[in-house]
Amino acid sequence: MGRHFLQIPGPTNVPDRVLRAIAQPTIDHRGPEFARLTGEVLERLKGVFMTSGPVVCYPSSGTGAWEAALVNTLSPGDKVVAFETGHFSTLWCELAARLGLVVDVVPGDWRHAADPAALADRLSPDVAAVMVVHNETSTGVRSPVPDIREALDRAGHPALLLVDTISSLGSMEYRHDDWGVDVTVGCSQKGLMLPPGMGFNAVSEKALAHRGRLPRSYWDWDPIIEANRRGFFPYTPPTNLMYGLREALIMLEEEGLEAVFARHDRHAEATRRAVRGWGLEVLCADERAYSSSLTAVVLPDGHDADAVRRLILERYDMSLGTGLGRLAGRVFRIGHLGHFNDLMLAGTLSGVEMGLAAAGVPIKEGGARAALAYLEGSEGSAGLEVAE
Amino acid sequence: MGRHFLQIPGPTNVPDRVLRAIAQPTIDHRGPEFARLTGEVLERLKGVFMTSGPVVCYPSSGTGAWEAALVNTLSPGDKVVAFETGHFSTLWCELAARLGLVVDVVPGDWRHAADPAALADRLSPDVAAVMVVHNETSTGVRSPVPDIREALDRAGHPALLLVDTISSLGSMEYRHDDWGVDVTVGCSQKGLMLPPGMGFNAVSEKALAHRGRLPRSYWDWDPIIEANRRGFFPYTPPTNLMYGLREALIMLEEEGLEAVFARHDRHAEATRRAVRGWGLEVLCADERAYSSSLTAVVLPDGHDADAVRRLILERYDMSLGTGLGRLAGRVFRIGHLGHFNDLMLAGTLSGVEMGLAAAGVPIKEGGARAALAYLEGSEGSAGLEVAE
Amino acid sequence: MGRHFLQIPGPTNVPDRVLRAIAQPTIDHRGPEFARLTGEVLERLKGVFMTSGPVVCYPSSGTGAWEAALVNTLSPGDKVVAFETGHFSTLWCELAARLGLVVDVVPGDWRHAADPAALADRLSPDVAAVMVVHNETSTGVRSPVPDIREALDRAGHPALLLVDTISSLGSMEYRHDDWGVDVTVGCSQKGLMLPPGMGFNAVSEKALAHRGRLPRSYWDWDPIIEANRRGFFPYTPPTNLMYGLREALIMLEEEGLEAVFARHDRHAEATRRAVRGWGLEVLCADERAYSSSLTAVVLPDGHDADAVRRLILERYDMSLGTGLGRLAGRVFRIGHLGHFNDLMLAGTLSGVEMGLAAAGVPIKEGGARAALAYLEGSEGSAGLEVAE
Amino acid sequence: MGRHFLQIPGPTNVPDRVLRAIAQPTIDHRGPEFARLTGEVLERLKGVFMTSGPVVCYPSSGTGAWEAALVNTLSPGDKVVAFETGHFSTLWCELAARLGLVVDVVPGDWRHAADPAALADRLSPDVAAVMVVHNETSTGVRSPVPDIREALDRAGHPALLLVDTISSLGSMEYRHDDWGVDVTVGCSQKGLMLPPGMGFNAVSEKALAHRGRLPRSYWDWDPIIEANRRGFFPYTPPTNLMYGLREALIMLEEEGLEAVFARHDRHAEATRRAVRGWGLEVLCADERAYSSSLTAVVLPDGHDADAVRRLILERYDMSLGTGLGRLAGRVFRIGHLGHFNDLMLAGTLSGVEMGLAAAGVPIKEGGARAALAYLEGSEGSAGLEVAE
Repeated sequence: MGRHFLQIPGPTNVPDRVLRAIAQPTIDHRGPEFARLTGEVLERLKGVFMTSGPVVCYPSSGTGAWEAALVNTLSPGDKVVAFETGHFSTLWCELAARLGLVVDVVPGDWRHAADPAALADRLSPDVAAVMVVHNETSTGVRSPVPDIREALDRAGHPALLLVDTISSLGSMEYRHDDWGVDVTVGCSQKGLMLPPGMGFNAVSEKALAHRGRLPRSYWDWDPIIEANRRGFFPYTPPTNLMYGLREALIMLEEEGLEAVFARHDRHAEATRRAVRGWGLEVLCADERAYSSSLTAVVLPDGHDADAVRRLILERYDMSLGTGLGRLAGRVFRIGHLGHFNDLMLAGTLSGVEMGLAAAGVPIKEGGARAALAYLEGSEGSAGLEVAE
Repeated sequence: MGRHFLQIPGPTNVPDRVLRAIAQPTIDHRGPEFARLTGEVLERLKGVFMTSGPVVCYPSSGTGAWEAALVNTLSPGDKVVAFETGHFSTLWCELAARLGLVVDVVPGDWRHAADPAALADRLSPDVAAVMVVHNETSTGVRSPVPDIREALDRAGHPALLLVDTISSLGSMEYRHDDWGVDVTVGCSQKGLMLPPGMGFNAVSEKALAHRGRLPRSYWDWDPIIEANRRGFFPYTPPTNLMYGLREALIMLEEEGLEAVFARHDRHAEATRRAVRGWGLEVLCADERAYSSSLTAVVLPDGHDADAVRRLILERYDMSLGTGLGRLAGRVFRIGHLGHFNDLMLAGTLSGVEMGLAAAGVPIKEGGARAALAYLEGSEGSAGLEVAE
Repeated sequence: MGRHFLQIPGPTNVPDRVLRAIAQPTIDHRGPEFARLTGEVLERLKGVFMTSGPVVCYPSSGTGAWEAALVNTLSPGDKVVAFETGHFSTLWCELAARLGLVVDVVPGDWRHAADPAALADRLSPDVAAVMVVHNETSTGVRSPVPDIREALDRAGHPALLLVDTISSLGSMEYRHDDWGVDVTVGCSQKGLMLPPGMGFNAVSEKALAHRGRLPRSYWDWDPIIEANRRGFFPYTPPTNLMYGLREALIMLEEEGLEAVFARHDRHAEATRRAVRGWGLEVLCADERAYSSSLTAVVLPDGHDADAVRRLILERYDMSLGTGLGRLAGRVFRIGHLGHFNDLMLAGTLSGVEMGLAAAGVPIKEGGARAALAYLEGSEGSAGLEVAE
Repeated sequence: MGRHFLQIPGPTNVPDRVLRAIAQPTIDHRGPEFARLTGEVLERLKGVFMTSGPVVCYPSSGTGAWEAALVNTLSPGDKVVAFETGHFSTLWCELAARLGLVVDVVPGDWRHAADPAALADRLSPDVAAVMVVHNETSTGVRSPVPDIREALDRAGHPALLLVDTISSLGSMEYRHDDWGVDVTVGCSQKGLMLPPGMGFNAVSEKALAHRGRLPRSYWDWDPIIEANRRGFFPYTPPTNLMYGLREALIMLEEEGLEAVFARHDRHAEATRRAVRGWGLEVLCADERAYSSSLTAVVLPDGHDADAVRRLILERYDMSLGTGLGRLAGRVFRIGHLGHFNDLMLAGTLSGVEMGLAAAGVPIKEGGARAALAYLEGSEGSAGLEVAE
């Protein structure tokens, strides 16, 4: 009984309002009503990516949008420099390699952000693109995209900048145009508060002009951008998710993107205070790189993070994120993004606190209480107008 | 953003599953599919009332079911003895008086249960019925229905026993047959986890045999019970709420009524520990009479409970119950019934704690923490099977 | 597979949009958001009743609203004149009698409208009210409410005029204020396109001033009108149906009431052409009295209308209305009201045509075809803007 | 007002039941509940494809599943033989060419099925695969897959057989295993009655063993099949569509696939009788090749099919399929597949008949009537049990 707490770092809790929008009857994807929907959604989407250029939508997961970013811009054998920031950056590198690209990985310890300074030595003339994950979903570490842009500019290097914003878009500050990103990769099921099923590429003029020769058809931007002008798609789009996307974008606009970012920053800070209150360690080792959409928590040696997660799921009906790749069993991840508010966070942290204790992890008292004290003292509001 | 916390003592948080059931297409209320639905729902309803007799369903609020209990059994000028336990018992008495009954009120201080011992002096031969509210929604005080039955039996008095279970049915132990109740009044929007719109009368054989002469038509049991035999109703029933009712009854059966009661008892105890942890007072002054579905909290003099509620609604998007009648401004009520679990309670109590502090009510630290400690230490489980 | 055709004269096919509105989370019925909803709904409702006075909403069926109209205005032993137009007018009379009123029934043959001329002889000084069903749901006969008003005025008689619009409101022209009606009785599940569960009384100033002494509490207008001023109700209203009501009223406004009426008139005429095309008889024997929301069809002697209905339900998944009261087995009723359009009507009439043939009822060919010819030739439009 | 008639050949009318399933809260795609869902869905899916082998699911459109079939099995420069049957077969060929395959097209006139006899001359040893569209959605022509298999077998040629069942799966007889197909391409939004957003590959053992060297990552079968064993996916699956898929598969099982096929056959025959009744021509010129899921109708010279479609959309709120590619303006397509029944078909054909007349297309009377006569005379039933 009671609601499930879906506190993985995505898919996130989908608002009822969005679920109801998705449940509207499916319509003709070649008819006038759908053309109006497409036009509206594509226009609103630009606001979230902070771009004036096109945003290409795929019926796909975020992984598909990763692949799309590469096959549209690169050619077989092209060299790409990629920052290792965690499990997902690693998967993206593997994907690139499978497509026939040569990947130069800047190694990382999964606790720090991508280091722009590491670029200088690697920017040989044959580098076609730089790949970076803005907010590494496996670690809760945010990388400084503007600084990477600056490093490229300083080097005067023409490589394209490809950025994964899968778990930051619509939750943490991100500016496709201002930050000079060439391809931004996003998806539906995190900050956009939708179920999984849509992937996105926001595309710069430079990227549009710089098309590679990797074979492509499904992912090809050109026919999509061309058909989008009239409100259509070259193949059947995920119509019902588009209803939901419209609704979710309206919700984000109603709150205001700056307020959305501030809300996530505040919840992330409260979560870290809880973690420290328990005497545990946040995985991210650099406070400048803290993620605002999720927090990975390191367990003391000898404690199995997945056993804790299982206990919390069984006893408190809350899903937390598992440790991925080399972090398996050592960390769990708390998602505090999307359709989320103070009391949901309070419930979440209470559940973690009770679960850690029940699992026998030695924690100090007062973690959840420290979070509440921070929430109470900081500016926050449900933003409701309440008439007397 | 994020979910609203609806923590008034009803309407309660309606499960998504029930909302989706209600959203099924409306069907012919005279057709065979509806007849099957009626049969199933009426049978399952008996389980919740713990009766083998009929349960009469109305398209109405709970107030309608109050009226139905009276007009079916009593005659103009009949005398009824009614226990004053709070605002709702008072409203029921007013309703009875408007219908032309003579109401002998056993006064109460709104902090204690109905006292069975008070009956003896009042059971004159002309008393036709005794009215009592099992769980007074305005105060969070539970009255001892079996003891009232016993007092009647001891006196050998034939008065009918009419009981309001509006905020206890499906949340707190209640046994229509075993406790010898003649008419039990219930409604949809509390423990049954539905939106408002249905009222119920569970009816004993004695009540069925003992029909009064108050004018009645809409509320008349007989044509309803008669039509119900074939799966129908004498007038159009609230078909879509009946879909929801079937779903809600299945959910209660899945959890098991004993487990449902234990869950509510546990959440109520945790809530009271929070209240005491804050240094505040629970309105109910007798621990044997604690309600398990709601807790009314008394504010220190000079503090306006409604101002606190407003602040909590604005800042934390949570609705709490107002003080009603003579309690206006002095108490607020926390609903912890229905579709509810540990983490929702943790969020709720955290919101109350933050809100009290923000409103300047002097509280001690550690209320929410005390509740967590109790939850952590007591038996509780989301009841999920989680495969390894 | 495929959609059920719910072509009884109510409950009608509820629009998806309304079902989704109803599936919104239940909220605090004493909070500010609900107060705004109440205010909006009550204002929009006036438009449908065409009144500037109050419309009182009940959690009830239409039968409840019948009872409310009587208990608010009349006193025990009052005399009312009521027109017999069919099964529902008869039920209303029985209800009145059960409440202790003296009912003077103007007999009718169930095929003609109420005859205003019949009033003159019956308007003795002790008549307190005249009751008439605007659109008799059991027969598909519409009575001339303005002419009845005129008859009362001509007689200078002060009796209240009480009108049932259960199956005409929001489908056929009806003007509470212009027609001088004192209490209009309506409900949710017909032209208002909602599930059952709400009843309505639109109330004139005269009715408000002329309160009777019948005992009442649940149905009492005064506390409801009083609480409605602040956006609330004296007891818990059917919150989720109110979401749906808002949506349905917006839909009616989007189409425009005049267009709604014209649509129903056109579908009714098409239906009658189909009936005549089959060589069957429309029950309503006076063309000035044709209902626009339903058509009752008389079967030739020796044919069982319910057997036809059963066959159509089994074979074509369509529900038609049964013959009620003295019409049982002799007629079936086609509902063509509410959320309905040309192609739904074409499917409906095709199903009736196939079903009659399959049941061995001797019909001529071409009924459905005659309806199509009429639809094709008359003004009608889905009202969609379709960009080239 | 009233329901939209979505009579394009997909997306089809999604059942309410499926829409509600899709609107369930999103859950953890790595949790135990999701693993159970995956297991159940994949098992049921096998039934629809009539295969005992794996069915690979993609978050994609059907076009993505086309691409997946090719990149998993073929190598750069491979030769494929493809039958031109219409617009979609042509698009699939273009897709293959863009991926670097050499496509040998067997030309067709878009009015006849693929001719198995044409294969013999083209089966040079370097042919790696044969591509055929089972039911060409642009023309309503069905090709004889078993005969093509037989032609391959007779030639003893090892080429893989790749078949598109996008608009036949779940509507028309199709047997992946029995017919010896190597890769079957399907999608969600036609016979499976879901919104768009999922693509499928059913895969034979031979296809699994015969992996090509085209670059692939997103579409790679191996990691998906591997992860599916434990109930998971290598990247985030479209969780909410999977809820809907489970529901739709249950609905198909409830009706029974043979009954589903018979229903589609019957509706297609009724539709063709209507077309002939109007004196118009069915595009498919070979009666052995009639599609049971859609019918393309040829307009007389000088009449614009899209103008007719527009008029029908505006006036009757029905969407029909446009003429694609070389058929633009000359044909329109009626979809009669998926969640569909006799009365929906009657409404559909009535709308086409009225629309043709209103658009000034010279038609004979009696088309819709001929369809009804056929429906009436043939075996068909809503399959409902109706108690007396």
